[in-house]
Amino acid sequence: MTPPDLTAHIERGLRDLADLVAIPSVSAQDRHLPDAARAVQTLLEAEGFTVREYPGQVAPILLAEAGEGPFTLLIYNHYDVQPEDPAELWDTPPFTLTERDGRLYGRGASDDKGELVSRLAGLRALREQRGGLPLKVKWLIEGEEEVGSPSLEAFIEAHAAELKADGVWWEFGSITPEGRPVLYAGLKGIICVELRCRVAASDLHSSNGAVVDNPLWRLAAAVASLRGPDGTVLIPGFHDDVRPPSQADLDAIAALPGTGEALRDTYDVTRTLGDRGEYHTRLNLKPVVNVNGFHGGYDGQGSKTVLPAEGMVKLDFRLVPDQHPDRIVDLLRAHLDQQGFNDIEIVELESHQYPARSDLNHPFVKTAVQVARDVHGHDPILNPSSGGSGPMHPFMQHVGAPVIALGIGNIGGRVHAPNENILRRDFENGVRYAAALMAALADG
Amino acid sequence: MTPPDLTAHIERGLRDLADLVAIPSVSAQDRHLPDAARAVQTLLEAEGFTVREYPGQVAPILLAEAGEGPFTLLIYNHYDVQPEDPAELWDTPPFTLTERDGRLYGRGASDDKGELVSRLAGLRALREQRGGLPLKVKWLIEGEEEVGSPSLEAFIEAHAAELKADGVWWEFGSITPEGRPVLYAGLKGIICVELRCRVAASDLHSSNGAVVDNPLWRLAAAVASLRGPDGTVLIPGFHDDVRPPSQADLDAIAALPGTGEALRDTYDVTRTLGDRGEYHTRLNLKPVVNVNGFHGGYDGQGSKTVLPAEGMVKLDFRLVPDQHPDRIVDLLRAHLDQQGFNDIEIVELESHQYPARSDLNHPFVKTAVQVARDVHGHDPILNPSSGGSGPMHPFMQHVGAPVIALGIGNIGGRVHAPNENILRRDFENGVRYAAALMAALADG
Repeated sequence: MTPPDLTAHIERGLRDLADLVAIPSVSAQDRHLPDAARAVQTLLEAEGFTVREYPGQVAPILLAEAGEGPFTLLIYNHYDVQPEDPAELWDTPPFTLTERDGRLYGRGASDDKGELVSRLAGLRALREQRGGLPLKVKWLIEGEEEVGSPSLEAFIEAHAAELKADGVWWEFGSITPEGRPVLYAGLKGIICVELRCRVAASDLHSSNGAVVDNPLWRLAAAVASLRGPDGTVLIPGFHDDVRPPSQADLDAIAALPGTGEALRDTYDVTRTLGDRGEYHTRLNLKPVVNVNGFHGGYDGQGSKTVLPAEGMVKLDFRLVPDQHPDRIVDLLRAHLDQQGFNDIEIVELESHQYPARSDLNHPFVKTAVQVARDVHGHDPILNPSSGGSGPMHPFMQHVGAPVIALGIGNIGGRVHAPNENILRRDFENGVRYAAALMAALADG
Repeated sequence: MTPPDLTAHIERGLRDLADLVAIPSVSAQDRHLPDAARAVQTLLEAEGFTVREYPGQVAPILLAEAGEGPFTLLIYNHYDVQPEDPAELWDTPPFTLTERDGRLYGRGASDDKGELVSRLAGLRALREQRGGLPLKVKWLIEGEEEVGSPSLEAFIEAHAAELKADGVWWEFGSITPEGRPVLYAGLKGIICVELRCRVAASDLHSSNGAVVDNPLWRLAAAVASLRGPDGTVLIPGFHDDVRPPSQADLDAIAALPGTGEALRDTYDVTRTLGDRGEYHTRLNLKPVVNVNGFHGGYDGQGSKTVLPAEGMVKLDFRLVPDQHPDRIVDLLRAHLDQQGFNDIEIVELESHQYPARSDLNHPFVKTAVQVARDVHGHDPILNPSSGGSGPMHPFMQHVGAPVIALGIGNIGGRVHAPNENILRRDFENGVRYAAALMAALADG
């Protein structure tokens, strides 16, 4: 079957995108969030969606529903964007969608208005072609993603029944320069903590280091005990809940291209962990602990012979299924106590994320991958998990369906930075993909 | 023999001290250093000293000589002072010697103009009483002590022949509230270094912590490996050159009062090292490593999921005889290499100090202690070494004589801080001590 010509829908989608980019819906600065919500609602209602608006902590949450059919697809996107600062580094105005050399520039062009609009344009094309939407589409669109989605998990839990679906199409994902779509079937979980140690009310002269303990040594020894030189976490019990990867996970990882050359070259990395052959296994499947910051005592030029009164360390733990963030904090406490560091305080920072990973053998995942191959004309790159973290787990837990992330970002897309952009090629394929995926799901 | 009445000399000394305090000879700010040198030279010449002035890196160095006799005493003092900032916290003008409730307030009243002047007043009294100075006194007075004595060691080495003496009376020391003089027969050495680690050209997202090493973990593990929980340094070879304490050292330490209560109470210390019974042994005899600072990555509120590109640690090692600062750096390098941290750079910070400790059985030391007992009317507290560091070793090495430090400071003397002061009682006893010590040394 020849794919339908979607040119008109692509052009219409680009006009929609220009309209949305023109609304500076910066959630961190509470700018124009209801305006953007209203614009999205109008676009959705024009395609037959019933849209309900719910209050979030920062911005309205939209829950839209349309169509009828044997398959229910839940789509997740967001209408808020990062601040445009530093504005002077943009080559064209950040809130004016501008095409140049095959790229479309503008804040939100990629993250996430471009994704949202390309999906809507594909849905519009399918609806026109079939004379109606041949599957049930539920669409959850929030305006707080760029400030950490503070309302999302509770919203999903509270609206679990309304959100029930057979598959979840998540925001996020990219296309390689060669045109290969990069899909993620999972995200790592995360828990961030601060360690604090104090030995005195104020700093002392370091001659007293013979008789007063040193909080920076204590923190250093505590941090050193958390992992080995190869990065393996050494906290007893840490790996107990790690679900062994499936054969499908291992096969997918074996098929992933490269061994991290781009990362090493971009950042001029001088010390890697693991063999190059382990690169994807580690990023997808290995839980890790990161020292994000370590601070205490003197930081100026030369020396200062001070025995600091206190110090602090910031850590994040990147988790894999089925590790529990809360349990990790308990294990960390027990480990520090066992190591003699019961004086070191653990402070939990902000909300955690549970890890999530979908079954790669699930028909929904297989369909999403197959359609990506057909539409992009290149083998998809299917990651069982990203090395990063985000609120994917609440979808899996409460919606009860596998989740797949496939977006239209690109490696030079400058997401969160000046000159954010997408390739026109990727936007066009994004529209085609949305139409083809929904058609495939509807047709079973 | 009834001690002579030194009242007139004490009053004359206090007038001299007021004159010197009035000269704001702040070496860190290059203020009035030649003026202070000239004032000291005038005072010395009035007592028959031949004074030679040598250029230092920051301020003139004075080398004075007077008297004749069987014993040659080398005295060391300095005429420079710390800055008066914050000036608004002084209750009376910092450069106006002011008596109040038995204390004399002013910048340099204790450190070190009060010591210098009290010694001169005692010498003046002895000279008048005997009709001449019955011993040879060499007096080395610098103006760079508060900026780390950058010229001193080389000066002593270059002028070793002129400085030859039978005993060295060093600046520094204090009197307890009960009136017990606190003497030091040694100082610890010191070497300060910075450790640096870098894994990439710029910070990375912490999801990359699965495949890129963490410089803060590496520094933490390196620091953790330097000592044990009890503070014992674990660098192989570190203790090889440690000279066993003499029986006299051990006896002196056994006689020291208290177990660090004042320190613990003043600073509200919650974690000590060693048993209380080990307090003085550790401060006097145990070499230690201090973490003065540890910095890298995020230090703001909440979390930031960053993998920092680099980090740094500042350390000082407090050494005891006969450890060599240079050898310690070599041992540290070898240890880090052996532990797998050959990527961690060691940067030496500023000049080091060798440790120094005099023989407590030397007649000069015994005389200094006995005279202190007689003059103060209380048992002296004789420390084989301070826990602190300073340029004492060049005197022992090049002058070839034992060194003893006995000053007139007090525990509430606020040295280096606003409202620096000495007790009038301690100044008076300082004058008496100088006269009596020189008499005892002259009389053999």
